[in-house]
Amino acid sequence: MLLNCDIGESYGAWTMGLDDQVMPYIDQANIACAFHAGDPMVMCNTVKLALEHKVSLGAHPAYPDLQGFGRRSIACSPDEIHAMVLYQVGALSHIAAAQGGSLSYVKPHGALYNDMMRNESILRAILHALSQSPEELALMAMTTADNQLLKTLCAEYGVVLLLEAFADRAYDEKGYIVSRSTQNAVHHDPDTILGQAVAIARGEPLQTIDGKPLHLEADSLCVHGDNPESVAAVRAIRQALEGQAG
Amino acid sequence: MLLNCDIGESYGAWTMGLDDQVMPYIDQANIACAFHAGDPMVMCNTVKLALEHKVSLGAHPAYPDLQGFGRRSIACSPDEIHAMVLYQVGALSHIAAAQGGSLSYVKPHGALYNDMMRNESILRAILHALSQSPEELALMAMTTADNQLLKTLCAEYGVVLLLEAFADRAYDEKGYIVSRSTQNAVHHDPDTILGQAVAIARGEPLQTIDGKPLHLEADSLCVHGDNPESVAAVRAIRQALEGQAG
Amino acid sequence: MLLNCDIGESYGAWTMGLDDQVMPYIDQANIACAFHAGDPMVMCNTVKLALEHKVSLGAHPAYPDLQGFGRRSIACSPDEIHAMVLYQVGALSHIAAAQGGSLSYVKPHGALYNDMMRNESILRAILHALSQSPEELALMAMTTADNQLLKTLCAEYGVVLLLEAFADRAYDEKGYIVSRSTQNAVHHDPDTILGQAVAIARGEPLQTIDGKPLHLEADSLCVHGDNPESVAAVRAIRQALEGQAG
Amino acid sequence: MLLNCDIGESYGAWTMGLDDQVMPYIDQANIACAFHAGDPMVMCNTVKLALEHKVSLGAHPAYPDLQGFGRRSIACSPDEIHAMVLYQVGALSHIAAAQGGSLSYVKPHGALYNDMMRNESILRAILHALSQSPEELALMAMTTADNQLLKTLCAEYGVVLLLEAFADRAYDEKGYIVSRSTQNAVHHDPDTILGQAVAIARGEPLQTIDGKPLHLEADSLCVHGDNPESVAAVRAIRQALEGQAG
Repeated sequence: MLLNCDIGESYGAWTMGLDDQVMPYIDQANIACAFHAGDPMVMCNTVKLALEHKVSLGAHPAYPDLQGFGRRSIACSPDEIHAMVLYQVGALSHIAAAQGGSLSYVKPHGALYNDMMRNESILRAILHALSQSPEELALMAMTTADNQLLKTLCAEYGVVLLLEAFADRAYDEKGYIVSRSTQNAVHHDPDTILGQAVAIARGEPLQTIDGKPLHLEADSLCVHGDNPESVAAVRAIRQALEGQAG
Repeated sequence: MLLNCDIGESYGAWTMGLDDQVMPYIDQANIACAFHAGDPMVMCNTVKLALEHKVSLGAHPAYPDLQGFGRRSIACSPDEIHAMVLYQVGALSHIAAAQGGSLSYVKPHGALYNDMMRNESILRAILHALSQSPEELALMAMTTADNQLLKTLCAEYGVVLLLEAFADRAYDEKGYIVSRSTQNAVHHDPDTILGQAVAIARGEPLQTIDGKPLHLEADSLCVHGDNPESVAAVRAIRQALEGQAG
Repeated sequence: MLLNCDIGESYGAWTMGLDDQVMPYIDQANIACAFHAGDPMVMCNTVKLALEHKVSLGAHPAYPDLQGFGRRSIACSPDEIHAMVLYQVGALSHIAAAQGGSLSYVKPHGALYNDMMRNESILRAILHALSQSPEELALMAMTTADNQLLKTLCAEYGVVLLLEAFADRAYDEKGYIVSRSTQNAVHHDPDTILGQAVAIARGEPLQTIDGKPLHLEADSLCVHGDNPESVAAVRAIRQALEGQAG
Repeated sequence: MLLNCDIGESYGAWTMGLDDQVMPYIDQANIACAFHAGDPMVMCNTVKLALEHKVSLGAHPAYPDLQGFGRRSIACSPDEIHAMVLYQVGALSHIAAAQGGSLSYVKPHGALYNDMMRNESILRAILHALSQSPEELALMAMTTADNQLLKTLCAEYGVVLLLEAFADRAYDEKGYIVSRSTQNAVHHDPDTILGQAVAIARGEPLQTIDGKPLHLEADSLCVHGDNPESVAAVRAIRQALEGQAG
């Protein structure tokens, strides 16, 4: 079980995230590509930090929306999405290559991620862009109780699928994370987060928000490096998983 | 003698340039990378058009300034310029690769081009970025009466230098183009433009604005596709150079 | 019956619209506020042109989306829309005041206009912004067969409502314009356009796309200055309306 | 002696500055206008906070450069600067008016401030914009040993001049603040900062970095709310000035 984290979300004079503190504990860095966060200088520095820690580089492309941090859906056509994914992935890929690195995967950010999970034409636009890359790029997407459509489309485009789950979010019966507006949607208790991480890693069923068992297939857990508490949670998950592995 | 032209300068709903009309007559397309013009969709379409006409692909990176069309100098640090060149070149390179193409060269745009010609630290920042590219990327720069510094620095960074001259601009004794604010700085007469193009291609001396002879070393002529007149001039230059070559 | 037209949609080096040709024939200029088109310099020049022709000044605020020309809906909260409308209206209002002019009305642009017509919370956010203006600002919105909700909400916020209709678009039974993707949705025949304009001005019923009669209440007709044909249509409508008035 | 502080420099998801902590101690808030920081929502919230504390509202217009935080000079024409100042001041003025407030002054930000102090045509462009405002807007500028040009030009445009000094910066003989790249250019010792603040307020001479006496005429002291230390310094200055006044 790998750990992935959104990284490189500073912009110009604004700092966000404790990148250097969380980087030692993660396997995969989802690096912002300057459309929702992360200017070109930040991208260079973030790639450098990730390479120093031998963390896999992933592009984290987004809708063009700095002000909304890529969290607001923009009604783009599939062709526009295809082009903006190529653009952002290419920019980061080249910055990585300049330092001797290369990208392993792409995880769309924010509203683009949500729209991809809901809208097949958007998912296809993104897969089309990934399939055209000279380097092999996997797609990181959200696991649910039924990943068949994701698997079928990734196979159609010849793109490897990486499924991610969340240790700090409650799930419903269909394996969707419960909306933040619902009570108890986000786990804050460190032990609960740790327990859910270990269960997913072991392939054990979780309990949904309604108390039912849920099996989630996952390659990676999405963790956060926003503040000291979330970094501590990542460190604890890392240690638990390593104990697990041993 | 090759012909290069700024291409792909439309943006969103705004159209600029007669790209499809001028593309058949040029050898090298300087393609905007979305910092001064050319959004990702425009870049995809421009690469497609250039590949159809077997025109070499060049990146045309700029300061981040859509409103000023990259013509306003921005006081960036060399590190910022290095990062923004990597970013823009990478974005275009990936869009080209998605269509089976690859970039041959980089020609900085507008104020960045002028600043590079005047400021060694900016030139070095750009060369540094080019030297880090996995694909070999030449630098297109402005020829003058003395290209020694350009040659020395390109050699230092292992970057091929492409020198470009202008058929429609008056030159001074040092081989600099005369500022547009000076009378007679821009040639409008088609025969004068054609004559200057042929002279540069033959390696014959030009006459400076003060009537003195000037020898210019050049690999490429910069031409324009803004309007029907400039496209006609490009076609005439192309025909004259081919007659020349034959 | 007044004529309104989208104006000031150039941006930086890109020109759009024949503003100086259409301005003599219109009554109300919907002036872009730099979020979808029209940078601050363009706004100054557009206000100057409108004042010279004694054309009423209207703000044409939009989602922040230059690349999409404000035509792509962005999932903004009502608070974000309230703030962005205040911002854009204020910027244009101050530019107008600097030249001795003042704004009369606000017509949201593109996707924001469509979203306002469909979503009461967005309409309320816009009306809230208008109601807070020190100068009295009317709202220009689309007339349909039933304008009751618009009228009720405008009254609630103390905002004058201006209803606009289209001379070049086919209507359905509910008084909505037929989507451009439908056949015959846009009138191209000059006589048809002129006939629809005159009918609306006289208060006579139109024929819907299904051949049924439709009565539309309207204060203003939306016309276009994009190209010579549309300018000719505006001139013809103006002449017909004046003949009408006489 | 008044205290002014840059305020409202958050943007979207990024937070900057301890605005709510420093606001109780200042007299004048220099509010970012979305060109270098501060989106429309942030501007609305910042105006609200300032009005609650009865702090004077000032516009803090900048070059259009979010990534560079307005600290990079952009080679704009005076007409472009005139238009961008009108635009930004208007946007903030309208947001203030929506809450029953009004602007008192304008303090250009960052590189625009520095360029204004060095370049008369830029200063004139800004004064021209201020002189066209329906509300009376003072210009806040940097005091030096010789403020004659500032005073003459402000008088020419009918604009009130507010001179500001810095409590935490070393000065040279001409009354210019010493560049940050020089040793001891910035005071970090709280007592030194407090002493300089009180001296300026009393009209007593400062010691330049070379140990010479310097008299500075000032209406306001520029203070900072970036972090707990700077907020503590502002509180200490406020208390000292009040003791002074008493």
